[in-house]
Amino acid sequence: MIRSADNDKLKTIRKLQQKRWREKLGLFAADGEDLVEAAERAGWEAEYVLRAGVDVEPDLLSGVSTLGSGTRVIGVYRQRWAEPGGELSVWLHGVEDPGNVGTIIRSVHALADGPVVLGPGCADPFSPKAVRASMGSLFARPPVRAPLEAVPGRRVALSAHGKRTLREADLEPPLVLCVGAEREGLPAELERDAVRIPVRTESLNVAMATTVALYEAANRMPANA
Amino acid sequence: MIRSADNDKLKTIRKLQQKRWREKLGLFAADGEDLVEAAERAGWEAEYVLRAGVDVEPDLLSGVSTLGSGTRVIGVYRQRWAEPGGELSVWLHGVEDPGNVGTIIRSVHALADGPVVLGPGCADPFSPKAVRASMGSLFARPPVRAPLEAVPGRRVALSAHGKRTLREADLEPPLVLCVGAEREGLPAELERDAVRIPVRTESLNVAMATTVALYEAANRMPANA
Repeated sequence: MIRSADNDKLKTIRKLQQKRWREKLGLFAADGEDLVEAAERAGWEAEYVLRAGVDVEPDLLSGVSTLGSGTRVIGVYRQRWAEPGGELSVWLHGVEDPGNVGTIIRSVHALADGPVVLGPGCADPFSPKAVRASMGSLFARPPVRAPLEAVPGRRVALSAHGKRTLREADLEPPLVLCVGAEREGLPAELERDAVRIPVRTESLNVAMATTVALYEAANRMPANA
Repeated sequence: MIRSADNDKLKTIRKLQQKRWREKLGLFAADGEDLVEAAERAGWEAEYVLRAGVDVEPDLLSGVSTLGSGTRVIGVYRQRWAEPGGELSVWLHGVEDPGNVGTIIRSVHALADGPVVLGPGCADPFSPKAVRASMGSLFARPPVRAPLEAVPGRRVALSAHGKRTLREADLEPPLVLCVGAEREGLPAELERDAVRIPVRTESLNVAMATTVALYEAANRMPANA
């Protein structure tokens, strides 16, 4: 039982809150029973798991948790990146908010069982907020780091300024749904043929827009028709 | 120009981070130019607006902001609640996360121009996180506080355990889309006839599921057909 904050495992967990340490060590932490169970279900072996009251004094574990008091378990895992491919991928460009990145990983897993490909300027999918928002889908479908050219499939770009609507788009797989930041959007060559979701306001949240497009695409896939 | 942290306007903004003060004063704060502009567009008069370098020293403003350093403007507004009604409403039950509540307010405004009705156990829509996530839609479509009985329209409940799919549901307006917490779901009488969004995992994020259902309903409305 760990009884001192001056412990290497605890210190590592605290370091993993910072991106530079996650990159340096190639590790990340998952806080909470849901996530640790999701890792187990997906067959990930942890570097180590610390349980409050079993492996470590509860207060010490809460002290290194991003969730704060009451944390019951934290697992530390080695980062994994998947290869591009499959019937449906989502390519993200400049999506800086880790909650949005994690939520999109969750939605793609739920609706289309595909990977999320992180283009330039995206939040770290292994950051605590992204891991939490993914609700464990990060373990089932690890993210991909690749340029768009390396991702196979028809490109369909989603933009608030698209000329055609999503309903009018050809979403036949293999499909690469391209999604940009809410303000900056996508590179010009992708914006040109983009499709939009009809809205009465300026825009939808990027994770919402992506999820709606995934729903539309999933509905047209043979397995779901 | 305010040059001391010991200023009533600044102290009020700090208090408004807490729910009990928001309730006591009937006010809330909106951080950032986007939100203050959205309030203006929606015709809301602020109790007061503090601009960094104009009305207050920048560091003092950042000190009371929930966004942290670099905050340029904070507006303080009187809370408003709308009456139930309209072609499409979303009724939330036990949605505790303020980010989800704010995101849903944004999505309903964008896709169906309706109000969000807050049932029991929901996060305060005037909390800083909810206001931010609403991206100003809170000003355009203030939330409603009402029991479900007071909301007119056909009830369609969304649940991971629904027997029919969303596509099969009758979404004819006036419609009340009923959405519960991710874990606890909805009261039993609503769960009974609920519809689900077909997913390959356990569930979608509650804001994602709501947005998908809104998209489906909006697509069937005469104005969008």
